[in-house]
Amino acid sequence: MSPKITTELLKQLRQVMKSPRYVQEPVQAYIVPSGDAHQSEYIAPCDCRRAFISGFDGSAGTAIVTEQHAAMWTDGRYFLQAANQMDNNWTLMKMGLKDTPTQEDWLVSVLPEGSKVGVDPSIIPADQWKRMSKVLRSAGHDLVPVKENLIDTIWTDRPQRPCKPLIVLDLSYTGVSWRDKIVALRSKMAERKVVWFVVTALDEVAWLFNLRGSDVEYNPVFFAYAVIGMNTIRLFIDGDRMMDPAVREHLQLDSTLEPEFKIQVMPYRSILTELQAVGAGLSPKEKVWLSDKASYALTEAIPKAYRYLTPYTPICIAKAVKNALETEGMRRAHIKDAVALCELFNWLEKEVPKGTVTEIIAADKAEEFRSQQKDFVELSFATISSTGPNGAIIHYKPVPETNRTLSVNEIYLLDSGAQYKDGTTDVTRTMHFGTPSAYEKECFTYVLKGHIAVSAAIFPNGTKGHLLDSFARSALWDCGLDYLHGTGHGVGSFLNVHEGPCGISYKTFADEPLEAGMIVSDEPGYYEDGSFGIRIENVVLVIPAETKYNFKNRGSLTFEPLTLVPIQTKMIDVSLLTQKECNWVNDYHQKCREVIGAELERQGRHEALRWLIRETEPLIRVQ
Amino acid sequence: MSPKITTELLKQLRQVMKSPRYVQEPVQAYIVPSGDAHQSEYIAPCDCRRAFISGFDGSAGTAIVTEQHAAMWTDGRYFLQAANQMDNNWTLMKMGLKDTPTQEDWLVSVLPEGSKVGVDPSIIPADQWKRMSKVLRSAGHDLVPVKENLIDTIWTDRPQRPCKPLIVLDLSYTGVSWRDKIVALRSKMAERKVVWFVVTALDEVAWLFNLRGSDVEYNPVFFAYAVIGMNTIRLFIDGDRMMDPAVREHLQLDSTLEPEFKIQVMPYRSILTELQAVGAGLSPKEKVWLSDKASYALTEAIPKAYRYLTPYTPICIAKAVKNALETEGMRRAHIKDAVALCELFNWLEKEVPKGTVTEIIAADKAEEFRSQQKDFVELSFATISSTGPNGAIIHYKPVPETNRTLSVNEIYLLDSGAQYKDGTTDVTRTMHFGTPSAYEKECFTYVLKGHIAVSAAIFPNGTKGHLLDSFARSALWDCGLDYLHGTGHGVGSFLNVHEGPCGISYKTFADEPLEAGMIVSDEPGYYEDGSFGIRIENVVLVIPAETKYNFKNRGSLTFEPLTLVPIQTKMIDVSLLTQKECNWVNDYHQKCREVIGAELERQGRHEALRWLIRETEPLIRVQ
Repeated sequence: MSPKITTELLKQLRQVMKSPRYVQEPVQAYIVPSGDAHQSEYIAPCDCRRAFISGFDGSAGTAIVTEQHAAMWTDGRYFLQAANQMDNNWTLMKMGLKDTPTQEDWLVSVLPEGSKVGVDPSIIPADQWKRMSKVLRSAGHDLVPVKENLIDTIWTDRPQRPCKPLIVLDLSYTGVSWRDKIVALRSKMAERKVVWFVVTALDEVAWLFNLRGSDVEYNPVFFAYAVIGMNTIRLFIDGDRMMDPAVREHLQLDSTLEPEFKIQVMPYRSILTELQAVGAGLSPKEKVWLSDKASYALTEAIPKAYRYLTPYTPICIAKAVKNALETEGMRRAHIKDAVALCELFNWLEKEVPKGTVTEIIAADKAEEFRSQQKDFVELSFATISSTGPNGAIIHYKPVPETNRTLSVNEIYLLDSGAQYKDGTTDVTRTMHFGTPSAYEKECFTYVLKGHIAVSAAIFPNGTKGHLLDSFARSALWDCGLDYLHGTGHGVGSFLNVHEGPCGISYKTFADEPLEAGMIVSDEPGYYEDGSFGIRIENVVLVIPAETKYNFKNRGSLTFEPLTLVPIQTKMIDVSLLTQKECNWVNDYHQKCREVIGAELERQGRHEALRWLIRETEPLIRVQ
Repeated sequence: MSPKITTELLKQLRQVMKSPRYVQEPVQAYIVPSGDAHQSEYIAPCDCRRAFISGFDGSAGTAIVTEQHAAMWTDGRYFLQAANQMDNNWTLMKMGLKDTPTQEDWLVSVLPEGSKVGVDPSIIPADQWKRMSKVLRSAGHDLVPVKENLIDTIWTDRPQRPCKPLIVLDLSYTGVSWRDKIVALRSKMAERKVVWFVVTALDEVAWLFNLRGSDVEYNPVFFAYAVIGMNTIRLFIDGDRMMDPAVREHLQLDSTLEPEFKIQVMPYRSILTELQAVGAGLSPKEKVWLSDKASYALTEAIPKAYRYLTPYTPICIAKAVKNALETEGMRRAHIKDAVALCELFNWLEKEVPKGTVTEIIAADKAEEFRSQQKDFVELSFATISSTGPNGAIIHYKPVPETNRTLSVNEIYLLDSGAQYKDGTTDVTRTMHFGTPSAYEKECFTYVLKGHIAVSAAIFPNGTKGHLLDSFARSALWDCGLDYLHGTGHGVGSFLNVHEGPCGISYKTFADEPLEAGMIVSDEPGYYEDGSFGIRIENVVLVIPAETKYNFKNRGSLTFEPLTLVPIQTKMIDVSLLTQKECNWVNDYHQKCREVIGAELERQGRHEALRWLIRETEPLIRVQ
């Protein structure tokens, strides 16, 4: 990887930072945030402004350019990558290290008195604006909105915003019509005495209208906003996608409907002016509900006294609880996904010893097997196919420069998933195609114990996921090992592979309580830098549990694994398992054999079936 | 308990709320917070203003009086008590219930437009002021500081502020001189570029100067503030306590000292004017460090741009990490405490069957045995002596109206502790003096498993205590049982029995990481309403652990119990324990026998020694 040469670009940016054509007054610093106008985790090429100006294209990072400096804040996952991709114009600010200043503190330390700091108000989340603005103001500077994005003014070959056709999801997939979702949303609005609700997150728009898109890679979403009133529905969306007869019928655009379900389609870009009109027309005590992560521009469109901001929207919370049909879809998707992985691992077992399978070839093969399955749409994230030391890079993605050949001497870690029309998958298995060392088996077994501790945990209804995180670490901690990432994240239903508002992580406190129907991942790991990586990940469904005393009728919850892919028994040191843990593995493998076996049989995949049968032989624990 | 009649008092309060003698403009509501000017958990009688005006004397509660209403906010521990103690003038606002409005929202709903809400600025914490003020302002009202406390104006027989003699703690107890503590504090101040530090919490003043007092029951503190500059030390304290030669010598008030260690003694009440003078004399970039829980009045004395506020002060953090001599003192205190409890339980075993021992008698007897021990000062909190259904009331304190006789048919729960000059104790044991039921034993054993899970936990250096909370619940959760309080709190060294900044609770996220030398309690429980309560509490010391891989040199931690009192084996269902748990109990009891046995022997307490030997017989687990 050679760094991007940014000298000329930075010169141009510094010119527009002073140009009266774009800024009312010159700005002495310009912030380039990571996200798009919807605070998406995955973004479209036209929104990769930070990568354009700096060369660094990791998923998280904020660039700040002043007249003298150019600095990039990113976290531990990306220190190496950012250092490789950026030229000497840039200073890397390693977040999480003790001596690294925050963006605000750094700005205060380098700016001349009374400076203006510019940022695109349609991209910066309102909560972040508030925090930065406060610190800057107290130091005598000003955070100012710059309406025209300054990167766009110098980005001559900036790609078009994608505007791809929509996919209509019928009731057999979604379980609830968009009309019923609107009714439920309006009832939540009425509860909080709110008269307008602004949908800004792309997956929330998609979920609400039972539509999917492909504007962003891996995330089946499309660029749109929605504004829901008690009697109005406005959908802000571009292109001729609304000309598609299937979409028109689905949204009943040409039917005579009760006025409160009539969707007004408006141009994507008109959201700001429309919202300003809404803001200007409010009567006293009328409130407008927005996510506190909505952009500063949209938030400001509503006068402060009328805003109702929450960290999680009612759509985010409703979307997280999957209904019976969504759950069934997720089950089907995971069965198909398991079939593909049985095929893959059977194939790898034969091919790896020949020394011709690289990380990239393995990832491509996994995609090939997945694409053979019904209703396959695309991958749900960039496949992490990593062997040996690459496995210790938690967010590794093989590229030609790092591509390593799989061998019988190294651990192989595959973290991959797909979007099927009936569900989203995300699974990690760690395999050895030769003979693992005692130490590798020991570490793998601790990770497995942690995985089981979460998966088999029983807890009262309403428990927040972060309270389960330590269960995943206890076995590792006992021997002085740990891993530096959370244990699980919410998973969408044919939607984003990472979604809120729940998860299992020591890093958060503001997650919503777990309830039956939520779907999260369970993925503890262990990473030995320069040597190997281990992770065992299942997607699990929150289900009611049966307990002796049932928490005084509060209700008991536990998890059911949706992922049904064998966990390599060769990697397990059975002597480290308790009888209960051993039974868990055997029960899990029995279920894999039954459910996935039947599907492999049905699809006529006999060799993969034989592999499955062999890999699901029960463990025997010698007392 | 009959309620306090408050009609006349409320009438008087409403008069002064309008009286130009006390308020510049009439206030339409007056807030009476729970705490004193130091945000103490335990307060002196002169500060019990909320109890005076309402009758409700629980440890937490906020009263608000308007022209029409009088309302009391308190939490679940006190619903019953508050309802019993307050007359019909008062509305009970049950915090934590879904429909209960916040104080701010309630005020907005009942006040006429443009109202003024008064509060004593020297009592309300700055963070709370900020929150309330914001909500009130956005609804068109004003929160205004009323300098003279309006309760005090109508409280004719208000007790004097206590002003009792001080206790000097020499280096053999504290391990570090107050001069060295000042040096360490100044180095923390220099790190943060702070020129003044304001000590507002009573236990922080006491710790800093190696002094103790008895102005507040159970907490060995005295009313004082301190303001530390880089070359100045100001101690704000009343009375003739500074005339005590021992105190004068300890503080070197009459010695020729380097000026930066010369203590200026000033009147307690002058803190505000002195701080205002400090605030007025600051140069640009000079900052003053305060706790964000300091009173609004003190915080406002420093202009906003000069304030440096943190949730935990450097004193709070330093105080939490006990040095070698403090730890030794805590060990000694816990040995003496265990001797007293062995005597008590031996006595109870003989007396309870006679049917003459009430909860109050048992509590008094516990105090009697403790007071026989060397360096005993007082109890560290009101003894929770509860039998049968009273045990399910988590913060129960026996009073004549509720006093129950101990019997061989009910579980007895004793949560008690003392202040010794060398340390503070807090221990809970749950006993049965007859034959416990299978269900009682089952519940007790789950609680014990949780207690052991925390006590024996191994975790990486820097882990926050809240991440260990679920370990205490796991065994209970497996059968559908839980308890609704945190698992542990920090414990002071001959200081407050509850102290920050660390603990073990699902309720907090902002605790500081645990480190070796910190001392916390480990106290899971289970409560069956109307029937019984179970809690097993040890005070434990954070110590380095030996692990196989030691977290890549990050270091491993675990706990060592300081409390050495037998856990009643009669209550344990051994078949529910793992071998590891069984070994833990046996090792613990072996240590009790050795350490406490030796001390009982030394003190010639032979009968209690025989009781100890019997109660520490090893458990035998049948495989």
